[in-house]
Amino acid sequence: MYTLYYSPSTAALAPHWMLIEIGAPFELVLTDTATGAHKQPEYLKLNPAGVVPTLIVDGAPMCESTAICMLLAERHPEKALAPAVEAPERAAYLQAMVYLANTVLPAFRAWFYPHEPAGRDAAEDAQAAARSRIEAAWDRIDAQLAAGGPYLLGEKLSAADFMATMLMRWSRNMPRPATAWPNIARYLGRMRAMPSLREVHAREGLTDWIDG
Amino acid sequence: MYTLYYSPSTAALAPHWMLIEIGAPFELVLTDTATGAHKQPEYLKLNPAGVVPTLIVDGAPMCESTAICMLLAERHPEKALAPAVEAPERAAYLQAMVYLANTVLPAFRAWFYPHEPAGRDAAEDAQAAARSRIEAAWDRIDAQLAAGGPYLLGEKLSAADFMATMLMRWSRNMPRPATAWPNIARYLGRMRAMPSLREVHAREGLTDWIDG
Repeated sequence: MYTLYYSPSTAALAPHWMLIEIGAPFELVLTDTATGAHKQPEYLKLNPAGVVPTLIVDGAPMCESTAICMLLAERHPEKALAPAVEAPERAAYLQAMVYLANTVLPAFRAWFYPHEPAGRDAAEDAQAAARSRIEAAWDRIDAQLAAGGPYLLGEKLSAADFMATMLMRWSRNMPRPATAWPNIARYLGRMRAMPSLREVHAREGLTDWIDG
Repeated sequence: MYTLYYSPSTAALAPHWMLIEIGAPFELVLTDTATGAHKQPEYLKLNPAGVVPTLIVDGAPMCESTAICMLLAERHPEKALAPAVEAPERAAYLQAMVYLANTVLPAFRAWFYPHEPAGRDAAEDAQAAARSRIEAAWDRIDAQLAAGGPYLLGEKLSAADFMATMLMRWSRNMPRPATAWPNIARYLGRMRAMPSLREVHAREGLTDWIDG
């Protein structure tokens, strides 16, 4: 039994989606970032950085969406959402998870909060730099999918696809959304056909993007 | 047999140090970032982003220092440098690795290359913001060590300590290096006593910091 603290359309979406896909029993607790619920003392005890998501696992809180996705994949090996330690795809899996976490995710943070990298006066330049980093990531992922899809790691769906699809969705209102890259567009067509992605949209009350 | 492409005093240090600690046979290939070797066509075939390190595992190149450290820990379970999947510390381990990769590492990137986040005019402000993020990380890690050391995950050394120590070393010439935090200073005293950390300094030709 898991408990997921989430807010709609945030970094909680990938763990939420994985929980549905896995079919694990979980309780969902709304921590609405729009009302500042993620900065309330009670929540900060679980998540000192005051961000969503938090997953309660065996009674203890765990943060960082990428780490939560990795843990869920590991704890439900029957769903095969991560290559086994001895599998040849393991290196590519770890590399993809770290790349999404330390390159794509921070670039989106700078895109959505452009005053953070260098103050309000530099917000426009910070946003332009973030856009360029995000588009470079789509270049790279598009080429990777062209060379060896249909999934990020090749033949098999993995937690990396849940993270990547969430991040690609975040680009939907950007000047050049991820769907502008042809191999990514095809990839997202396949991901959007997953009933669990439609279900997490419904549960979070999200109506845009899922129908392309 | 591994091959590690490295440059001294870079993100290659943690994987290099882990290889020594593990005692695995490996070949070391200098890819000197000072001479631009990491941007040469031959190297870019292995590491399209043109950064160090790259690890050759079973004949295939792997990038991202954090991912490499995770892989090395997994492939050498007898060294117990990562909690087993079923261990209660597993969630904290994954969270720590992702936190170091997506929060501390990018902040150092902005500290060392302050023109990247928002252009040259905003470099000073970007560096100030990076410093503030790095110091917030030390606040958090210092408190964590105070609450449950001696290592990042508590009683047991893990790959997270190799990553954290490398990142703490990167702060050595900052206005407030990580050693200014008392629990981190104590922690680094313990890490510096590891013969493998001294050995990786010697092999990379590094003489500062190791003696505190």
